Amino acid sequence: MKLASMKQGRDGRLVVVSDDLAWCADATHIAPTLQAALDNWGWAEGQLRLLATDVAHETVPLERFHEREAAAPLPRAYQWADGSAYVNHVALVRQARGAELPKSFWTDPLMYQGGSDEMLAPRDPIPLADEAWGCDLEGEIVVVTDDVPRGVDREAALGHVKLVGLVNDVSLRNLIPAELAKGFGFLQSKPASALSPVFVTPDALGEAWREGKLHGVLKVDLNGQPFGRADAGEDMTFDFATLVAHLAKTRKIGAGSIIGSGTVSNRDADGGPGRPVDRGGRGYSCLAEVRTVETILDGKPATPFLKAGDTVRIWMEDAHGHSIFGAIEQVVAAV
Amino acid sequence: MKLASMKQGRDGRLVVVSDDLAWCADATHIAPTLQAALDNWGWAEGQLRLLATDVAHETVPLERFHEREAAAPLPRAYQWADGSAYVNHVALVRQARGAELPKSFWTDPLMYQGGSDEMLAPRDPIPLADEAWGCDLEGEIVVVTDDVPRGVDREAALGHVKLVGLVNDVSLRNLIPAELAKGFGFLQSKPASALSPVFVTPDALGEAWREGKLHGVLKVDLNGQPFGRADAGEDMTFDFATLVAHLAKTRKIGAGSIIGSGTVSNRDADGGPGRPVDRGGRGYSCLAEVRTVETILDGKPATPFLKAGDTVRIWMEDAHGHSIFGAIEQVVAAV
Repeated sequence: MKLASMKQGRDGRLVVVSDDLAWCADATHIAPTLQAALDNWGWAEGQLRLLATDVAHETVPLERFHEREAAAPLPRAYQWADGSAYVNHVALVRQARGAELPKSFWTDPLMYQGGSDEMLAPRDPIPLADEAWGCDLEGEIVVVTDDVPRGVDREAALGHVKLVGLVNDVSLRNLIPAELAKGFGFLQSKPASALSPVFVTPDALGEAWREGKLHGVLKVDLNGQPFGRADAGEDMTFDFATLVAHLAKTRKIGAGSIIGSGTVSNRDADGGPGRPVDRGGRGYSCLAEVRTVETILDGKPATPFLKAGDTVRIWMEDAHGHSIFGAIEQVVAAV
Repeated sequence: MKLASMKQGRDGRLVVVSDDLAWCADATHIAPTLQAALDNWGWAEGQLRLLATDVAHETVPLERFHEREAAAPLPRAYQWADGSAYVNHVALVRQARGAELPKSFWTDPLMYQGGSDEMLAPRDPIPLADEAWGCDLEGEIVVVTDDVPRGVDREAALGHVKLVGLVNDVSLRNLIPAELAKGFGFLQSKPASALSPVFVTPDALGEAWREGKLHGVLKVDLNGQPFGRADAGEDMTFDFATLVAHLAKTRKIGAGSIIGSGTVSNRDADGGPGRPVDRGGRGYSCLAEVRTVETILDGKPATPFLKAGDTVRIWMEDAHGHSIFGAIEQVVAAV
């Protein structure tokens, strides 16, 4: 089952989307918003699945589904907690600045509390007031939970993953060092992130969803050129079950919480730092990583951070080449 | 005007509360929840003020207002960002462990993104699974904003403060060092916080709300004994205007965002570390601070962290000794 929120008010209008993303049906008689559905998922899920069957059979009134008319599936959320599960990414960044990677990073997940009062629509521009802030994209996988009890274990945690989607976790790289040095984590360095047009139930992902991971190539294009083709199912040190359990260690997690994987990143086949797509590599899901590789190879970064007019596209295709979640397509806009 | 949310569903039922906290009137014909009112504050505020006048004149049906029946005014919120505006507190903690206080801490606010998917009711127990985590209270002032534009300046920021209240920002002290060492800020070390029964518009605070600060003694009792009597208007290095502007530097702030002052803390009159209330001092708004003072004076902390059965009470009185926000009254419960 695929769900989206069409732009309307602060929280969007819930629709069930056809598997091919061509059509959708209004679902507001079941729940006005996706948050409302997640608040009452035990009941709403079944109703929405019946509607999804009707959509597949074209036995209900359908509207054309246009990704450009979609809000973020959750235009605001009560929680956005982002992991850093692809430790390869962290190791590379540290290697570039000659910092050792603590061994614990391979066993204890990194995760930060993000701002969730505004999640950008998939076609919203990335507002940027100052290019000196070093604006970066980060292509990631996210999951959405229902209510998760405090202290949940890994296996039970997996059952609380109700939806899967994509995020562009926008980062202001040049604000990060000073902010992290203060010890309180990210704040100004993490402006609003954008979500994919559609979120999908795990069962609808078939074999691509297994072992608590989404398997498939996360495609990232920058200014129309292939930039990232990393497989989200590879090199993910901490699966989503582990990430959810990590967040729930000392507290309950409320329905509609969005939990992220961190930037998807693959090791290069030869064990070295990842190569660009145009040199046969899998590329990168953020600019910081290519800049890190450039620093390791050439002593300094060559790829600039995002500037006004740059475009970012993030999406994933199924085995038949069909878009699963729709695409995040953003242009950087000076504000 | 004073507002509260009576326990009902996930988001409570909005009521207008009389100034003396004795009575309240249902406000759901104006907005079903406080979040809904804040989403449309430009209209809802006027309607709620009319109702508040009716409450004062007893010209509408009134219910008794019982603090124990109140949920948090926002039982869940789209944002909880907590500053650390009483730099005295930070300086003391650093002094205890022999760490220097960076000069920038006096000019650049510390603030972290907190979890907001669950804000405890004022009488909810503090669930604690492991006393070894070092559970602490933190008495703080909070404000709630409407929509705040990106890049707002200090003066404009102040106009976006729509409500003022109190929080007990529960912290798990012994989880903090390892978590902050990872660089991503607080996560497991900050379980759910509790809010005061009532939030109040700045105008209703009269002279106590000035210069972007709430002036008045934040009363904190621990196990029935006076523990903290610090004045929230003193030694607050960064006022709320500065804190709101800090958060909004790179992004908009969504309506209903809760922004905290950090633990209220006063310098001692003689310039030394603060003395306990029973020795003529103003005491402390968290256990970490008394433990820090004990460490400075005696080489080690003597006051233990919270354990099951301990009680915490946090409130503030007006010039006539009347409770302004109602009281946060929590007992620590083993879970």
